[in-house]
Amino acid sequence: MKKKPLILVTNDDGISAPGIRALIAVMSEIGNVVVVAPDKAQSAMGHAITINSMLYLNKVSAENAAIVEYACSGTPVDCVKFAVNEVLKQKPDLCVSGINHGSNSSINVIYSGTMSAAVEAGIEGIPAIGFSLLDYDWNADFNPIKSFVKKIALETLQQKLPLGIVLNVNFPKLKENEIKGIRICRQAKAFWAEKFDKRATPQGKDYYWLTGEFVNHDQGEDTDEWALEHGYISIVPVHFDLTAHHTIQELNTWNLNA
Amino acid sequence: MKKKPLILVTNDDGISAPGIRALIAVMSEIGNVVVVAPDKAQSAMGHAITINSMLYLNKVSAENAAIVEYACSGTPVDCVKFAVNEVLKQKPDLCVSGINHGSNSSINVIYSGTMSAAVEAGIEGIPAIGFSLLDYDWNADFNPIKSFVKKIALETLQQKLPLGIVLNVNFPKLKENEIKGIRICRQAKAFWAEKFDKRATPQGKDYYWLTGEFVNHDQGEDTDEWALEHGYISIVPVHFDLTAHHTIQELNTWNLNA
Repeated sequence: MKKKPLILVTNDDGISAPGIRALIAVMSEIGNVVVVAPDKAQSAMGHAITINSMLYLNKVSAENAAIVEYACSGTPVDCVKFAVNEVLKQKPDLCVSGINHGSNSSINVIYSGTMSAAVEAGIEGIPAIGFSLLDYDWNADFNPIKSFVKKIALETLQQKLPLGIVLNVNFPKLKENEIKGIRICRQAKAFWAEKFDKRATPQGKDYYWLTGEFVNHDQGEDTDEWALEHGYISIVPVHFDLTAHHTIQELNTWNLNA
Repeated sequence: MKKKPLILVTNDDGISAPGIRALIAVMSEIGNVVVVAPDKAQSAMGHAITINSMLYLNKVSAENAAIVEYACSGTPVDCVKFAVNEVLKQKPDLCVSGINHGSNSSINVIYSGTMSAAVEAGIEGIPAIGFSLLDYDWNADFNPIKSFVKKIALETLQQKLPLGIVLNVNFPKLKENEIKGIRICRQAKAFWAEKFDKRATPQGKDYYWLTGEFVNHDQGEDTDEWALEHGYISIVPVHFDLTAHHTIQELNTWNLNA
């Protein structure tokens, strides 16, 4: 009998979010699951780590529970570091992050705590996937996408991801039979046009909420935005070498060492 | 007479850090400077943004000061968004971030608040540079690198950066006459081997400090680590399309739509 894979589950919406509960349910059909997730919502934390304050790690599952769960006071990236070094004391066969309540397509990958947890696992040499559903509702319905989450995780375990590659998977908010399939995509060149919502405290001091509008001028039909708008699940292979290799030659023509 | 460029200065060590003071001094020789920086240290914040709490923006410069300065309660990325949308109400000609107290070479680019501020400016279409000195000391001496910071900023203003490219500049901790020159590099494939320093509160509850050791097995002589170790200033052109384009073809052979 083949040994069941060891699967680490984390997220950025916090350990009590419905999205991670759905992900744990699917992963427990595939392997042995250990959960290390933030004890509170850590959305939009990017690749933040905690170095200027201390961290707590609390076991929150019952003594005889089938799945061991830990809540961590840190960021999603802290959770992955904790899981590998203090909880598992080994590399899991797979790390999955999410399912995020809301999109992490296009430029959102860079702000996303969900994806940063997956990328951190990738940096540590662990095959990793971030899952996100295009529904920001806390009561979002994850049932229509569970079979796809399972298929993608199983295929990733079987095919082996190239080293240094992490999958960014986004699901359209559709019924299961409305989803047209899965597309491998590139990250759309889109961005946020920020707006600051200025208000005043009861004492009259100004404060702001950061809001914004997502703007996509990328017409490509090979992008994650295109796929999602047309009823497909998007998978973008993501890497963490940020070097713009094609620009090195041009910069070498600059007059820097004169 | 040519119009002086408008230069936005920010950082992640906080508005009172000696590193940003040095950067402001250099930039004020080149252009009209506006400062929007975190009101406290925000190191290792990655590309975090503040969406679950409100933000304050306080003018901290004197009424008749030559350089206008704002302290923001948010992350480095928040500062750039604030600067462009609420303070300047226009795109500056250049955004510079730092000078960071400590290295942002290699994989550190992904954890760095300094670089995330620069990358955010890049996302908004602004030429941007992150500067870091390989000296974590609060009292680090920035004088030996000031002439290089000025040269790199001037060359960036003159040559124009390709759209979507941000410069990650790291300086070795050397005397000015010991610095051998400037090298255009790729990000070294190196990483952190984490260690958690476990302690107990006076009440007996466990807590942890995240520490680690930087490990570089990348032997390439075209990396930032190599340059810095050999007395050069490293410049890595960084982009924010995280797509691993070369992997798309391979993933299309997976059995995902069966």
